[in-house]
Amino acid sequence: MKGRDRLSELESFLSADARAFRKSAIRAFGRITSDPRVISFAGGLPNPATFPIGRLAELASKVIMEKSLVALQYGVTPGLPRLRETVAQICAQRKIRCSASEVLLTTGSQQALDLVARTLVDPGDVVLVELPSYIGGLSSLYARRAELVGVLQDDGGLIPDELARTCQRLKREQRRIKVLYTIPNFQNPSGRLMIQQRRREILELSRQFDFLIIEDDPYGELVFSDDSDTTPIRAMDDSGRVIYLGSFSKILSPGLRCGFVVATETIFARLELAKEAADLCSGMLDQSIVDEFCAAGELPAQVVRVRDFYRARRDVLMESLHQHFAGRADWTPAQGGLFTFLTLGDARDTREWVARSVEKGVAYIPGAPFFVDGSGANTMRLTFAKEPDERIREGIALLAAVLFGS
Amino acid sequence: MKGRDRLSELESFLSADARAFRKSAIRAFGRITSDPRVISFAGGLPNPATFPIGRLAELASKVIMEKSLVALQYGVTPGLPRLRETVAQICAQRKIRCSASEVLLTTGSQQALDLVARTLVDPGDVVLVELPSYIGGLSSLYARRAELVGVLQDDGGLIPDELARTCQRLKREQRRIKVLYTIPNFQNPSGRLMIQQRRREILELSRQFDFLIIEDDPYGELVFSDDSDTTPIRAMDDSGRVIYLGSFSKILSPGLRCGFVVATETIFARLELAKEAADLCSGMLDQSIVDEFCAAGELPAQVVRVRDFYRARRDVLMESLHQHFAGRADWTPAQGGLFTFLTLGDARDTREWVARSVEKGVAYIPGAPFFVDGSGANTMRLTFAKEPDERIREGIALLAAVLFGS
Repeated sequence: MKGRDRLSELESFLSADARAFRKSAIRAFGRITSDPRVISFAGGLPNPATFPIGRLAELASKVIMEKSLVALQYGVTPGLPRLRETVAQICAQRKIRCSASEVLLTTGSQQALDLVARTLVDPGDVVLVELPSYIGGLSSLYARRAELVGVLQDDGGLIPDELARTCQRLKREQRRIKVLYTIPNFQNPSGRLMIQQRRREILELSRQFDFLIIEDDPYGELVFSDDSDTTPIRAMDDSGRVIYLGSFSKILSPGLRCGFVVATETIFARLELAKEAADLCSGMLDQSIVDEFCAAGELPAQVVRVRDFYRARRDVLMESLHQHFAGRADWTPAQGGLFTFLTLGDARDTREWVARSVEKGVAYIPGAPFFVDGSGANTMRLTFAKEPDERIREGIALLAAVLFGS
Repeated sequence: MKGRDRLSELESFLSADARAFRKSAIRAFGRITSDPRVISFAGGLPNPATFPIGRLAELASKVIMEKSLVALQYGVTPGLPRLRETVAQICAQRKIRCSASEVLLTTGSQQALDLVARTLVDPGDVVLVELPSYIGGLSSLYARRAELVGVLQDDGGLIPDELARTCQRLKREQRRIKVLYTIPNFQNPSGRLMIQQRRREILELSRQFDFLIIEDDPYGELVFSDDSDTTPIRAMDDSGRVIYLGSFSKILSPGLRCGFVVATETIFARLELAKEAADLCSGMLDQSIVDEFCAAGELPAQVVRVRDFYRARRDVLMESLHQHFAGRADWTPAQGGLFTFLTLGDARDTREWVARSVEKGVAYIPGAPFFVDGSGANTMRLTFAKEPDERIREGIALLAAVLFGS
């Protein structure tokens, strides 16, 4: 700020929303722990070894040479028509009935979250979120100045009785609940799978208390066992009440920024306008590559490879936790996704142990920032996506040594 | 909406912003006029013949094979560090002093507009815009429920005396002016180049009445003559008052969705948070390709090729207009960019002639939607980007025949 100008402080020009923007504690941690010597259970990035690099290079070159009028040009706002059809088919495999006209392709599913928040949420609106919940989802809601109200989970996911109690309390206070934001499959950060009976009960509560559900499902394909039922809530509802979000980031490549949202007509029309204002269209090269990959029928085998990759690492992490943390902590079994969530048996604050751990060569993400009610001090998120087996074993032993002296 | 559910009308869940979203009349027109037999001066897409297809295909393949850890992975929110440096250098060539830390890479410059609108504009805020102005910019502002106040242009761009008058009136009404949105170089839709003296006067007015300036410059590199001085307003200001936006869409490829915004620290920090909530990061493959292209030193020659391409077509359009519209209309000389703007000598409404024109085989964009005050009925936007020389000649003759019978 130079003095020669009669400029008011720039802060005075900021919108009320901008004053409410929050920095993601997690992304900040991700940067702190970028030292390659540190064994990292922090971060939440997919492992690059799962990216089908050669095929993506071939397809990138192919679509640019053969389809440059599409891949290098502006596109229509909802996205490449054939890829929208493909997403509708992927949804059908997940037992969701929707047409391609209800599929909006987005710049990663983070944009889907943001567009949904802009389309539904006014300042002060009550939005229910899980305790804990995904930071990126919370960021989009904070950016709208929503009032976030947390609802407890246990190992079976969000607890319907807790949800009902919260809804009744808010009803008594004459507060309207606009939306519930949930990640039923292998939630970030908890790794939990919501049991099917609860999905039905939660949908029923959404009808009873008349709120919408934002169902975020980036991890559903990363399921490690046939026993796990990942059928989305959206599969049980055709009323337009459930807005369903998905992504190619975890099964193909996040750098390609290809996500989607499925919504019925009234909501879809507004999401499309929000997207037009937000970026006109998502990257057309990215969409073209994903489209060709899917059209060539290569996605199912890719998903199997990715599952196998993460399942093996999950197994190693679970074994190491049993060896070093049994009796000292509880953790989620991680039947899919990229994370387990660990709750220490004692009451200490994991935030206070981050620096010491990193110094000793092991990193994790403290759990508290994922809880909108300020709880969760004695929790942490651990990903098994990044480190190879031997480093997982070494890292967990090291973490136990830092926390418990052995 | 199925009856079995006690769902309120979905409309009742929409945010106030969502109710204010506006459909772009221009993008709707773009779809109407996609019949290849119709000679089109409508649309605003760069010509694909200007895309360096072979090189982009090579680079796409190269960055995926050699830099997959970057090109296919999530990236940091502000963008690829080396590309941010490159953009700072490009700005320096435009006489703008800024550091790479002030450059935020965005998903096209449309996202930059949207992030700036979210960061600065509250519902009801007064935002000054040019008459006419770019629809996509207006969309981002409408999506924030800004009160848009139009200021007249003439052939030299926005008129400082008109701007001063408007500012005084608003001041008398005790309305605070938050921002002026301007496109000084070869504006969309008018094609006008704002003269340098006016840029200084407008900057001075922004100091006097204490508002910020959003300077949108996607067309500045598409300058057809050395006589045209395209030095941005931002080059005259280091106070943080001018927020500068640019793009690779018109000089390289819009499908790659690579734009940028330059802002000083206070604003930059909020824009970064807004972007984190909006999409975490822009496409990393797109950024990697643009980065390699620039790092290889290929941008300057590419810009020369693009300029030559459009200059030749501009010449043909101007010649045809002189032949068929002299005495019947005025139009801007289009010393750069992609558009000329035509004002008919009579008072008819060009919207009423679109269908007839398309039926006869020629398309244009009526000018009225670009004017926030409802004026501009007798104007139209014509692009010389799409059609080859012979079709330009044929199309303008046809248009004259439709409008004037010969």
